[in-house]
Amino acid sequence: MMRDKILDFLKKKENYVSGEELSHHFKISRQALWKHIQELKEAGYEILAVPHLGYKLVSIPDRLFSAEISRGLNTKVIGKKIYYFESVSSTMDIAVKLGMEGSPDGTLVISETQTKGRGRLGRSWLSPKYKGVYLSLILRPKILPAQAPIITLLAAVSICEAIKRITGLEAKIKWPNDILMYQKKLGGILTELNAETDELRFAVIGLGLNVNNDKKALLTSATSLKEQKKENINRLDLLQEILRRIEANYLLFQGKGPQPIIEQWREYNITLGRRVKVISHKELREGEAIDIDIDGGLLLRQDSGLTEKIMAGDVAHCR
Amino acid sequence: MMRDKILDFLKKKENYVSGEELSHHFKISRQALWKHIQELKEAGYEILAVPHLGYKLVSIPDRLFSAEISRGLNTKVIGKKIYYFESVSSTMDIAVKLGMEGSPDGTLVISETQTKGRGRLGRSWLSPKYKGVYLSLILRPKILPAQAPIITLLAAVSICEAIKRITGLEAKIKWPNDILMYQKKLGGILTELNAETDELRFAVIGLGLNVNNDKKALLTSATSLKEQKKENINRLDLLQEILRRIEANYLLFQGKGPQPIIEQWREYNITLGRRVKVISHKELREGEAIDIDIDGGLLLRQDSGLTEKIMAGDVAHCR
Repeated sequence: MMRDKILDFLKKKENYVSGEELSHHFKISRQALWKHIQELKEAGYEILAVPHLGYKLVSIPDRLFSAEISRGLNTKVIGKKIYYFESVSSTMDIAVKLGMEGSPDGTLVISETQTKGRGRLGRSWLSPKYKGVYLSLILRPKILPAQAPIITLLAAVSICEAIKRITGLEAKIKWPNDILMYQKKLGGILTELNAETDELRFAVIGLGLNVNNDKKALLTSATSLKEQKKENINRLDLLQEILRRIEANYLLFQGKGPQPIIEQWREYNITLGRRVKVISHKELREGEAIDIDIDGGLLLRQDSGLTEKIMAGDVAHCR
Repeated sequence: MMRDKILDFLKKKENYVSGEELSHHFKISRQALWKHIQELKEAGYEILAVPHLGYKLVSIPDRLFSAEISRGLNTKVIGKKIYYFESVSSTMDIAVKLGMEGSPDGTLVISETQTKGRGRLGRSWLSPKYKGVYLSLILRPKILPAQAPIITLLAAVSICEAIKRITGLEAKIKWPNDILMYQKKLGGILTELNAETDELRFAVIGLGLNVNNDKKALLTSATSLKEQKKENINRLDLLQEILRRIEANYLLFQGKGPQPIIEQWREYNITLGRRVKVISHKELREGEAIDIDIDGGLLLRQDSGLTEKIMAGDVAHCR
């Protein structure tokens, strides 16, 4: 897009660029240039326009625009196609529709807020505007539907890695899909499937992550990266790193199967080795979470000595 | 709908009914009555209109109209909500969309023809107009995605039962989803899932069944009930019986689990006990099909003695 090209050009210049130079460089009229500049300003880019000097980019808005995500992303699959929204009901709904229409492996849907963000089992996810990262990602691995829980693990590991790299903070994973920091909820992952019984067509990973939420705007059981780091986090840097880590782990999974992902997951998790209560399909079980199976199931050793594999449920860690 | 009420009234009468009687009975004007009669004629109902005598229903069209399906169906879940189309790209596409919008358990989508009917793994299904039964059915059982193959088995069993009851003919099942008669393809079943990794949201069963196709319009590897029975089959009776049998087996599955369905499947199947070649994920395996597992997988004993479970693939029966 011409608008993005002009923006890139301005970003590279430390000083004013004359309108003449810009219109000459891009072979567009001064009127067309003026219109693109207005659009950029409306999108939140602060651009000074001074007669006889020209244009100068002063600041970039805290937005996750497609062009900003793409710039310097350097992935091959993940986020090669991006749909950006100011507000949607849920990025999941959009991504599932796009998936059904054939959108490719790695398609990203991102929104600055969600009016009906959702978590597992129909629960809601609060998505305050410009404060978090709310995304859905279409993946098309060649696996059976039964193997899909590995995708949730892969996403969880990638997010912890990205948080570590960008903020230095240590996020942890609670089985099956919670991202925690100091026992408080930082994010959640949701994986939805569209499949034939014997072939996954596509999965959609959904992520809701609290980034720059102020402490007072959070539930007592929740936290944000800002609360922990005591400063605003660059959401764009974090998002790009998440996408890069997902790509790296996705390629690893496709090349070497689930084992390396599961090993990484074990490192980040805080469920294994603990005494837990699990509510699964309305039944309560208690025991020691001894390991995770290759299909993502939690192996729970009950006091009777019986070890059971749990595929779905909510875990509470006992003290 | 008034139109359907008028139709029901005419069906019960062997002789002419005067326009006066009808408009009086339904408390509508003669003009309104005339309009409804025209609509019925356009839909294919042959209705004689004779001055001074009135209206008489002469014949019912060979169509699978919602109102005709509902009449005397007597199910509690399956087909309580019906979407009828003259032509669609694929009933699957419509049913998946309806499922995502929250259409209830048992919602039926039926079309007289499909321009892009599809089978397993993206293959196409020919759907000549008014000749077959092309349907998709939304089911919302509370199961894990990994348990979904049982739905395909359940549908296959139900279809064989319905064919037997309506035509007396014996259809057979080839793993995983082909309905055969005398080694020729009579129908196919496709099951698509929409799920979280740990909870099925809904499944859509798709059925394409050759009913009144003439022999010359069929591929040599295919057959139709008409070809076998040497007469036209009442598609409406057959469809109603299919829905009733699916409901009975669906309730059985929900009450007693997969075992009774699998036992019935074994009776109708022609794959078990045979030497077969299976192409699964581009790999060819050969051996004896010894049994079906509780999750719908085919247990194949290879010549090495190794028994493997195959979840997806195409089976060729060896001579």
